[in-house]
Amino acid sequence: MFDVNDPSYLARCAQLAMVLEVSASPKPGNVDRDHDYPDTTFEHFLASAIGAYPALEQAARSRSGVGALIHASARESLQWQRGGNTHFGAFVLLIPLLMAAGSGTPVSTIVENTTASDAAQFYRAFSIANVRVDSVAEIDLEDPDSIDRILEEDIKLFDLMKLSADHDLIANEWVCGFERTFQCAEMIAEKADRMSINDAIVFTFLQMLAETPDTFIQTKFGKEKSIEVSKHASEILTGNRDLDAIKSRIHEFDGRLIHERINPGSTADIIIGGLFVALVRGLVV
Amino acid sequence: MFDVNDPSYLARCAQLAMVLEVSASPKPGNVDRDHDYPDTTFEHFLASAIGAYPALEQAARSRSGVGALIHASARESLQWQRGGNTHFGAFVLLIPLLMAAGSGTPVSTIVENTTASDAAQFYRAFSIANVRVDSVAEIDLEDPDSIDRILEEDIKLFDLMKLSADHDLIANEWVCGFERTFQCAEMIAEKADRMSINDAIVFTFLQMLAETPDTFIQTKFGKEKSIEVSKHASEILTGNRDLDAIKSRIHEFDGRLIHERINPGSTADIIIGGLFVALVRGLVV
Repeated sequence: MFDVNDPSYLARCAQLAMVLEVSASPKPGNVDRDHDYPDTTFEHFLASAIGAYPALEQAARSRSGVGALIHASARESLQWQRGGNTHFGAFVLLIPLLMAAGSGTPVSTIVENTTASDAAQFYRAFSIANVRVDSVAEIDLEDPDSIDRILEEDIKLFDLMKLSADHDLIANEWVCGFERTFQCAEMIAEKADRMSINDAIVFTFLQMLAETPDTFIQTKFGKEKSIEVSKHASEILTGNRDLDAIKSRIHEFDGRLIHERINPGSTADIIIGGLFVALVRGLVV
Repeated sequence: MFDVNDPSYLARCAQLAMVLEVSASPKPGNVDRDHDYPDTTFEHFLASAIGAYPALEQAARSRSGVGALIHASARESLQWQRGGNTHFGAFVLLIPLLMAAGSGTPVSTIVENTTASDAAQFYRAFSIANVRVDSVAEIDLEDPDSIDRILEEDIKLFDLMKLSADHDLIANEWVCGFERTFQCAEMIAEKADRMSINDAIVFTFLQMLAETPDTFIQTKFGKEKSIEVSKHASEILTGNRDLDAIKSRIHEFDGRLIHERINPGSTADIIIGGLFVALVRGLVV
């Protein structure tokens, strides 16, 4: 029915992945259709997902230029809404996935072929999106001189990701062939056969969170807190068999995380990557 | 900041208009972020809005071909989701509005210049979307021979709309220069200055419904019912000054309409047209 190499088709799959992810509710701690943050609302995420179309389509036509495309998507996202950073981590996954799908190249090849120029562009995207991160190894991401150093020492974007892989789920995807993203795509597609797309996303989110502590939480609150949150997610899933009982416990969990302002943002980014892959492979809502 | 003649920019404004409209809640009787119909869900509307991008962008590059573009948008919408007709009425407004914005031509000129070929394509779009309608004057829209008659007698799409204008809000927009759509754009923009975008849409929806009985309700349940619903909307708005009190009465109203399966679908279409115009004119979420 669809031409899966059509750049517009792929860009729309990416838009829809972002829109479905932010809509899925209850998604513990994160913005969803029933919960805004004080400065970043559900509508900001919708406008960001839709506004980024040109960069997403361009990515599906490209084999190189990852850094510039991440920068373009972050810029468009910010032009379309006033809620600040919404999808930076998602773009870091989606841009190479779109390039891979559009060109028929393995995504691992796309990211391994990145250059120091990609790293410099990534750094610029970083600054405009105002993302909270740990510095990458000894390269201070808040120091403007770092761009010069990246270019002088020829530090490729893939090398930067390798340096972050142990404390950043997104960087880890780059280094490990997007393993969790593809696993997530399978989980969503399998669940969507027997429950609503909303519930398939919510349960996959919880399962991913239970399996791997969220590094966005780790950066903001420390490793211990991120492990505690994953344990809590795991308890909800193992203690119950009944879907409604699980959902009621997810609601409680959501309330607690929101109260403590703990948002598993990296897990949400992986879900977006997984939804994109599932949609390209034929998932229809 | 934006190039308002850029076809991609205009197509994204149309996508966002549809996504914001279906998200706005509580929207009495219609699908919204917190309410699905049995066969058509919130996610079906999201996928439809995003899937229609190519036809929307093509419209923003075109000065003619309204019928074929409505047909293309309806087809794409149906390919992207399994909930059936979601946005047919919205496309009938959005396509000429996109053509007008992209070419700098008044929308009234776009619709007045339509041909019998547009009418035939519109008729075909109608059949695939499986829309519930009254027949247009003596032309039975469920009879396949009508296409031949349209072409033989050279009945233009604008003429078809003139025949429907007294019992179809969307056709009436075509005939009256999209007056309600532009009025709606101003109401949304004015309200969005002092309340959330969600509430601006909800209150504009109620105001539009109070002012003009919904013809989608009229087609399904008769004129009397559509007038009764508008009276109810009007009472909610006139009896209250406090926003929260109004919202609580809108919730009750929503429950009643959903129970009776009464959905003011034409009013929702006008809201989408109005949101599109407001976004093109600079509304930012």
